[in-house]
Amino acid sequence: MRTFIVVGHKATTSPNFSLDDIPGTSGRLDILCRAVTAAFVVSHGIRKDACVYLVLLGGEEPKTIQLRGETLRHLNPDERTTAALLKKALAVPATKDWSMSTSGIFVRQSGLEGLLSDLKEKRLVYLREDGRDIREMDGRSLALDAAFILGDHTGMTEDEERQIDLANAERLSLGSTSLHADHCIVILNWILDTCSIMPG
Amino acid sequence: MRTFIVVGHKATTSPNFSLDDIPGTSGRLDILCRAVTAAFVVSHGIRKDACVYLVLLGGEEPKTIQLRGETLRHLNPDERTTAALLKKALAVPATKDWSMSTSGIFVRQSGLEGLLSDLKEKRLVYLREDGRDIREMDGRSLALDAAFILGDHTGMTEDEERQIDLANAERLSLGSTSLHADHCIVILNWILDTCSIMPG
Repeated sequence: MRTFIVVGHKATTSPNFSLDDIPGTSGRLDILCRAVTAAFVVSHGIRKDACVYLVLLGGEEPKTIQLRGETLRHLNPDERTTAALLKKALAVPATKDWSMSTSGIFVRQSGLEGLLSDLKEKRLVYLREDGRDIREMDGRSLALDAAFILGDHTGMTEDEERQIDLANAERLSLGSTSLHADHCIVILNWILDTCSIMPG
Repeated sequence: MRTFIVVGHKATTSPNFSLDDIPGTSGRLDILCRAVTAAFVVSHGIRKDACVYLVLLGGEEPKTIQLRGETLRHLNPDERTTAALLKKALAVPATKDWSMSTSGIFVRQSGLEGLLSDLKEKRLVYLREDGRDIREMDGRSLALDAAFILGDHTGMTEDEERQIDLANAERLSLGSTSLHADHCIVILNWILDTCSIMPG
């Protein structure tokens, strides 16, 4: 299972945003929509072995949306369809436990700290430009059980970085060019698909 | 200059599509919008050294839209904004010569054959799952002057493949997983950014 965690610092936790202006009305939920597509969509199908957590911090209480490839339905490659699925998830009354919205999509009231605690058995990898070059790693070991943590356009706060360090995440880098989260996920999927680019 | 050519077999050549339903009303122009974003967008900027040609074959006469990173303006990472820029380009009366729409965006009446002829000085690379593994190539030589040819969800026709072969394009592969054109472009940009993953 390949897991991607994306933190949306201003992303709305309410379904009251406009599908006609996603960037302008949802706290840049468009960034998270593209991250979802990057994680799951291949030609004529969905990656069953992927899981995405979207941590939405733009409301009064944080919410996390979980999308699981094995059972995910109705995901198309376009941004608006993905935003419509997230809108449905945000309309579900969220509690501390996961509630299902549509097939393969779940929501709960919780932020990054709770998620990191839930995933502590995983190999946590925090993507940062100044981390260790991912090409030095053994890709096959990453493919087995890594959970990759990515920020949005605002980057992680100091407090979040402290939580990530406390969770023992490795800092790895895809290179010196600063890329959007969805593009990082596309590259990570490719690295995991073609592990032989890695030594070892 | 890194060049990407994407062929949209059903992509409309008319501006009369709805920004509220891009996949359903434009002959899947959404695929080409995502390819544009993949080619140009990095965190907080645009790749100046990229150029994209979109070959639109879903009208009576084919049109090609050219986007040049050096002068490209108004491009945001979301799909709808890109579609609005393409809509403007399609509203420009197209002739056999390039006409500018907005800064860095040009349109003309022409299809794949004319474009391949124009780019014959480039190193043409046709991406196919069954091509030679791109990881065996010298990435630095690719970075210098390659033009990558990609299909949309329908793949290339036999006639197009004949034109591509006649233009002496190499067939290279990103691996056995069949990926969307925009994801291929993200990976190609990364390979060109980090050429050291290539031997040689």
